[in-house]
Amino acid sequence: MDIKFEKCVPCKGGIPPLDDKSIEELIVNIPTWTVQREQATYLTKKFKTKNFKQSMNFANLIFEISEEEGHHPKIIVEFGNIEVLWWTHKINGLHKNDFIMAAKTDDLFKQLNN
Amino acid sequence: MDIKFEKCVPCKGGIPPLDDKSIEELIVNIPTWTVQREQATYLTKKFKTKNFKQSMNFANLIFEISEEEGHHPKIIVEFGNIEVLWWTHKINGLHKNDFIMAAKTDDLFKQLNN
Repeated sequence: MDIKFEKCVPCKGGIPPLDDKSIEELIVNIPTWTVQREQATYLTKKFKTKNFKQSMNFANLIFEISEEEGHHPKIIVEFGNIEVLWWTHKINGLHKNDFIMAAKTDDLFKQLNN
Repeated sequence: MDIKFEKCVPCKGGIPPLDDKSIEELIVNIPTWTVQREQATYLTKKFKTKNFKQSMNFANLIFEISEEEGHHPKIIVEFGNIEVLWWTHKINGLHKNDFIMAAKTDDLFKQLNN
């Protein structure tokens, strides 16, 4: 099944974040995303938009799926681009949920441009 | 007149950004904002919110005044906080417009919490 159709599972912490091997296996589902290692490990992607309005429209669509799945990203909204960062705060790193949400984010962006 | 009631003037570039003396004079209108000097000089402020929904509500209010004034910020939306950065891209630094928009942003945040 395409990962974008999967649902997030509740994550209350108390488990380790995904290790490098698991990240490598999952990233093939979302090859246009970057694994960014800072204080935590994030999945990040910058999307080009036409203007600020389109950036906000995209942010609002991401907000809707975030509320549905109970999992929220960091979104950096600008005129002409929007950056989305997914990670799981409670484990200070990546969970499979983040890959699912990244795939759903890509799917939303396609809808925005159709 | 309170700076928040002023309107932005069109800025097409070709003028220098505000110098330090002008910034010092204007920042007294928005004392809770920080002048951040990186690639450009920004006005920045982080607002605490209850959740992601309140962050998005605030972002959408900021979007409305941005479209009205024809001047757009960078907005970093997260669960529990939102950071707003104002600067004038065309002069790679600060214009009085940015101080006006920062004051209007503070005013919107008060409305959001009332």
